[in-house]
Amino acid sequence: MKYDPELRLKELGIILPAAPKPVGLYKPVLVIDKMLYISGTGPFKADGTLITGRVGAELDLEEGKAAARQVALAMLSSIKTHFGELNKIKRIVKTLGMVNSTPGFEKHPAVINGFSELIAELWGEEYGIGVRSAVGMMLPSNIAVEIEAVFELKS
Amino acid sequence: MKYDPELRLKELGIILPAAPKPVGLYKPVLVIDKMLYISGTGPFKADGTLITGRVGAELDLEEGKAAARQVALAMLSSIKTHFGELNKIKRIVKTLGMVNSTPGFEKHPAVINGFSELIAELWGEEYGIGVRSAVGMMLPSNIAVEIEAVFELKS
Amino acid sequence: MKYDPELRLKELGIILPAAPKPVGLYKPVLVIDKMLYISGTGPFKADGTLITGRVGAELDLEEGKAAARQVALAMLSSIKTHFGELNKIKRIVKTLGMVNSTPGFEKHPAVINGFSELIAELWGEEYGIGVRSAVGMMLPSNIAVEIEAVFELKS
Repeated sequence: MKYDPELRLKELGIILPAAPKPVGLYKPVLVIDKMLYISGTGPFKADGTLITGRVGAELDLEEGKAAARQVALAMLSSIKTHFGELNKIKRIVKTLGMVNSTPGFEKHPAVINGFSELIAELWGEEYGIGVRSAVGMMLPSNIAVEIEAVFELKS
Repeated sequence: MKYDPELRLKELGIILPAAPKPVGLYKPVLVIDKMLYISGTGPFKADGTLITGRVGAELDLEEGKAAARQVALAMLSSIKTHFGELNKIKRIVKTLGMVNSTPGFEKHPAVINGFSELIAELWGEEYGIGVRSAVGMMLPSNIAVEIEAVFELKS
Repeated sequence: MKYDPELRLKELGIILPAAPKPVGLYKPVLVIDKMLYISGTGPFKADGTLITGRVGAELDLEEGKAAARQVALAMLSSIKTHFGELNKIKRIVKTLGMVNSTPGFEKHPAVINGFSELIAELWGEEYGIGVRSAVGMMLPSNIAVEIEAVFELKS
């Protein structure tokens, strides 16, 4: 089966939000040979605002997971803005999923699945699932989730 | 001197635990050309359970270091399960050592040495030591240590 | 415009501190083909001591940013010690900026700009700015900032 992420997005009725603007001295995406590096990306909503709050306190697991899905949409928007399309991507390689969580919260992987499920939906099991860490940190602007990733491009 | 990690494990009397199963949407290991990427791996014991607790509170430095060593064993088991052997590995490139620590704890590098010492023991000083960060985070399931790594494969 | 980081350092009147010695089982820098991997590096001052304290408590934003700049100087010193010069570097690829912050602190990107501004000053906008995450963690020895990075070398 051949995956077409643009088509799949359309089938799912998903419209990507505007690509986030950098809030510091970095590039949203950077290509080195066939590797695509992506900056830590926040959970942008369609209106351009960010989902904030700690998972385990102001947000519950499902709200955290929804925030991770918004990170995926924002990241896809950054990629599409850079290349003009998503079909340049061969596969996801690596995800660092950072959850703004309380010390007692234990379900960081379930939160980050909100990101990983969408990527797997668009690129399939072989190419849409990579290696991953899902952990808890303190995040800028009190955003709920931040994710950085590395993708491989088609050659 | 030529290092043989399989032989060295046998000499040390170490039996690897079963390879951990993913608890989210990720692959334990992924190969891109000659680089081997490893997902964040927890401190699995021989019985398949995880070492939990914060270093600096429920666990002391030595217990944290022992947990980091268990991460190394679990990671080696993931690698061996993927390739059927450890000898495909040329060297460790990069380690991100994440310690579930109290805010006042200061010895994250000494904890992560429990991982790094075993890798150095198996592959030697030149190939068994790479770049590293050793820091404190909040970890899923309250595990004591989680480590992600990148290795280079023999070509 | 051609950037010469050695010359620019001289113009800025910056003298690099001594390269930090590893405090665990890791190498400060490691080259794999044309990629230069750098270990998590702390904010070393000219006298060899480290800037400590949490940003948002003992340190304010400007002090945190100054600490991130010291990390850049220490990292440049590690690179120069390894290669004998800085001109082997083509570009910065990736920065993981880790701030020792209070839970309520929200300006991690502004802190890490202290690092990124110096790198951009030395290599320019195209090659001196890469992808980045800037987040809050607990750091060893209570250091204020720790940064790991990947650079690309000239071929």
